[in-house]
Amino acid sequence: MTLCDIGNTTADILENGLRRKIPLTEFDPESFECEVWYANVNRALDEKVENLPHWHTISTLIERDKYYPTMGIDRILVCEAIEDGVIVDAGSAITVDVMSDGIYEGGFISLGLRSAHEAYGRLSPALDVSFNFEVDLDKMAKNTPDSVTIGFLAPLVHEIQRVNKPIYLTGGDAPIFARYFTDAIVDEILVFKGMQKLINKGSKC
Amino acid sequence: MTLCDIGNTTADILENGLRRKIPLTEFDPESFECEVWYANVNRALDEKVENLPHWHTISTLIERDKYYPTMGIDRILVCEAIEDGVIVDAGSAITVDVMSDGIYEGGFISLGLRSAHEAYGRLSPALDVSFNFEVDLDKMAKNTPDSVTIGFLAPLVHEIQRVNKPIYLTGGDAPIFARYFTDAIVDEILVFKGMQKLINKGSKC
Repeated sequence: MTLCDIGNTTADILENGLRRKIPLTEFDPESFECEVWYANVNRALDEKVENLPHWHTISTLIERDKYYPTMGIDRILVCEAIEDGVIVDAGSAITVDVMSDGIYEGGFISLGLRSAHEAYGRLSPALDVSFNFEVDLDKMAKNTPDSVTIGFLAPLVHEIQRVNKPIYLTGGDAPIFARYFTDAIVDEILVFKGMQKLINKGSKC
Repeated sequence: MTLCDIGNTTADILENGLRRKIPLTEFDPESFECEVWYANVNRALDEKVENLPHWHTISTLIERDKYYPTMGIDRILVCEAIEDGVIVDAGSAITVDVMSDGIYEGGFISLGLRSAHEAYGRLSPALDVSFNFEVDLDKMAKNTPDSVTIGFLAPLVHEIQRVNKPIYLTGGDAPIFARYFTDAIVDEILVFKGMQKLINKGSKC
């Protein structure tokens, strides 16, 4: 079985334990021969995959009532992967969600590292500085790059620690965040684990 | 004596206890007849005010070694106003600075409310939502506007509280932040109080 997470620029595939990303310009759903379970946020591709008999949307297996109506599918899937913990998906946005004994407790959305950096740069050329990921987030800053890094990262990192649950990091910037959470588990295929758990549960019914 | 804080779009004036803002397009330093102490971040106006005999730059009264070289003059002035506390200047950026017994401990710079809102909107049309300032920052969110509001405000507010010192709020968005800090002191003329303290100290020498 193949798992596929279709985004706005790439399709993320997990097949026989191997992961690969295909740019949507080269992505041809019809070329897949096995059964595929997929999540899709790309409305332009909806019709194409819906009409393929061996493509199955993961949406049908999700109990939507556990979450809130406008919550993104990828966010739901990473939550489905974890019974108890705080899940940080650090991508273009950073989503932080809390699960307790399989129940969704809510979450919040922060800007991603890149969008925050760009927003500082738009405020003033003086703030258009690179983040200093070596900085100690428990101290106050005394130069501009540290002021901006601590200004963005310290509140976010401390807020995540405040939840006081095991921390799971996923998304492209997970390795950067891992340095601030010594006990966190970095899991780059959390979205696929959520899909797999839903499929396993669905097939038991 | 007149105090004047020149920014990039307006000159902020305190004269006989009365405050007024003059758009720079209508601002004529030569029209002031009394002695003026000023802070200026607008390089284009430097020469003009420097050459007026009754205009005195506050910079000459600041011990720059207490702060860091690239720190903005307005940030230094609000710090000079406070002996002990955390000073939050919530404007286009939000600067947070800590003073202990007159010593500058450092600080950090967060995005301002407007720039954060704009950055969310740039990430996705789904995140282009107004902040909900009524939200409880101690809970997790279960809808998009609350997720974005809590994502931006809760980490920042908790980080400021974490300093565990009296909180002073200034800048255009101070009234919004005041609702999250029940004991905070809102002081819209903190920058002028810093100027006045420096002038008083300078005249004693």
